[in-house]
Amino acid sequence: MGLSPMPSDAPNQDAPDGVRSNQDARDASISEGVATLVPHNRALGIRFVEAKGGSVTLALPYDEKLVGDPATRVLHGGAITTLMDATCGIAVFVKLNEPIQIATLDLRIDYLKPALPDREVHARANCFKVTRNVAFVRCETYHAQNPSDLVAVANGTFMLFRSAGSEPKGGAQ
Amino acid sequence: MGLSPMPSDAPNQDAPDGVRSNQDARDASISEGVATLVPHNRALGIRFVEAKGGSVTLALPYDEKLVGDPATRVLHGGAITTLMDATCGIAVFVKLNEPIQIATLDLRIDYLKPALPDREVHARANCFKVTRNVAFVRCETYHAQNPSDLVAVANGTFMLFRSAGSEPKGGAQ
Amino acid sequence: MGLSPMPSDAPNQDAPDGVRSNQDARDASISEGVATLVPHNRALGIRFVEAKGGSVTLALPYDEKLVGDPATRVLHGGAITTLMDATCGIAVFVKLNEPIQIATLDLRIDYLKPALPDREVHARANCFKVTRNVAFVRCETYHAQNPSDLVAVANGTFMLFRSAGSEPKGGAQ
Amino acid sequence: MGLSPMPSDAPNQDAPDGVRSNQDARDASISEGVATLVPHNRALGIRFVEAKGGSVTLALPYDEKLVGDPATRVLHGGAITTLMDATCGIAVFVKLNEPIQIATLDLRIDYLKPALPDREVHARANCFKVTRNVAFVRCETYHAQNPSDLVAVANGTFMLFRSAGSEPKGGAQ
Repeated sequence: MGLSPMPSDAPNQDAPDGVRSNQDARDASISEGVATLVPHNRALGIRFVEAKGGSVTLALPYDEKLVGDPATRVLHGGAITTLMDATCGIAVFVKLNEPIQIATLDLRIDYLKPALPDREVHARANCFKVTRNVAFVRCETYHAQNPSDLVAVANGTFMLFRSAGSEPKGGAQ
Repeated sequence: MGLSPMPSDAPNQDAPDGVRSNQDARDASISEGVATLVPHNRALGIRFVEAKGGSVTLALPYDEKLVGDPATRVLHGGAITTLMDATCGIAVFVKLNEPIQIATLDLRIDYLKPALPDREVHARANCFKVTRNVAFVRCETYHAQNPSDLVAVANGTFMLFRSAGSEPKGGAQ
Repeated sequence: MGLSPMPSDAPNQDAPDGVRSNQDARDASISEGVATLVPHNRALGIRFVEAKGGSVTLALPYDEKLVGDPATRVLHGGAITTLMDATCGIAVFVKLNEPIQIATLDLRIDYLKPALPDREVHARANCFKVTRNVAFVRCETYHAQNPSDLVAVANGTFMLFRSAGSEPKGGAQ
Repeated sequence: MGLSPMPSDAPNQDAPDGVRSNQDARDASISEGVATLVPHNRALGIRFVEAKGGSVTLALPYDEKLVGDPATRVLHGGAITTLMDATCGIAVFVKLNEPIQIATLDLRIDYLKPALPDREVHARANCFKVTRNVAFVRCETYHAQNPSDLVAVANGTFMLFRSAGSEPKGGAQ
């Protein structure tokens, strides 16, 4: 996924109770970014679930138009991969916590078992390392009802296009 | 992509002119399998282009609903990956030349450059090795106008689920 | 790594105190398998550290002959990969817990940072999924002193060559 | 493989006959870089074969100390991977044609068949794309006698650490 920095989406400061936390605002911003602003996510029905503990979770509801094999009605591997690519990208964004343009450099997916008919699939990604130019991410995908029984795992690297001004002085990698 | 064997689609033998070659019939069958029978391919607009010289080519026409970044209108990496997964699967089918159930075991994608707005993307895959249980495939993706300027490459392995009857006696791998 | 089943290595039953547990015996067997029986592991100095909680850890002591860049004295990426391949293979063996021939099908490595001079490197692998024909493994590599600061991660799939007799009746995948 | 720029090794300009071509000089420099200067290559016996047509070929002679499975005497997958990592790195160097520090970012290997006893293995790599920060490489490995029967294939990405002075003004990727 190539992504421009998401538009800043400041929390509504004059809400009567001022109760909306920064994290809620961030999550609302991510949610909109995932499900509304990216046309292909919207077309597939991908939506934001949560960002916590350094991980980001997105959901892909079952839909007949995502089917890869009409005989079994299991999801197309490409739909699973699209979900994982999107989830990895958001995990990088959340980790960076600043507006930096990113792009998927590579993605490697293991398919452990088919995604079953009529069941929502969740992907949870964690960006576990960031260098000057590259972010490393891991993502696990499973039926929403059973997070420990993995459907697929992905490992990805994302390029970071930091603007010159954001560079640390003398920074190497 | 998990795929059941495609329905056999024998050429119409009693066509008046008998002009339809076996290869044309095979290609028509693949074309229908790709673009009509697989719901997610159909939803994305993926269609068959050709199968020749051991390679299979599929096309993904540009569509706003495939966009990954609204700021640049480049395609979502997931759409590219879905195209490559589908193309790799068909390349395995063509190579096997018999009705064997297959499933993507893993897929590794390098994204070399963005897929530009308003341009059709082609993926060409070659299944270069088949063992008892596994098929190995490589796929190159590019804008249709410029096959030598790659957008992405993929390497994949597919599991083959041969039925017992098709097993060579005493077969190991 | 292609590996034949390791020789069974029964615990010494007539030890005076009978204190040697099955796990100790298994670990001794693994240790010998890793460090003594496999010539290339022995040539590199790879040794067994522990197998617990479903994970296996092997060590690669620093050695000048493993250096990849004489200017920096960092280890050759290939030495790190060899360590990870070996560790993944042992993790599959421990998980299977029966004598099945295995072979690496594919291995994908991310290099996060250089392995520093004069420091021992550890790799810890976990086989997180086994199907009829394939085992999936993940491996993390780090300087022994600092397990949380990763040097490299690997994901691998291994083929399992079960003998006919070991097949479950009617087993599919 | 992390590699500092190789020492420049200018051809002997004042050789009486001036017969030594630039390419010969380059090849001699690469050959020394591969087989002599990198300790781990030297320990494994890796040597330079040729660089032509955009591809680089290195060789790994069979040696008992490279064996991964004593029962079959096939090479350790790690030795094959080390060969491929080294070959990919040299292919990037040759493609760049200027002294830039590089490091393997990731490497993904498919093992198609075992490397047989007593046979030399060759790896041929081609760096098919270079961006500002990343080089993409593909490598095929085979027994020297039979280049078309592949033992393994690898795809890798390498980070390029261009010095500030070498940067195009305002260059993005």
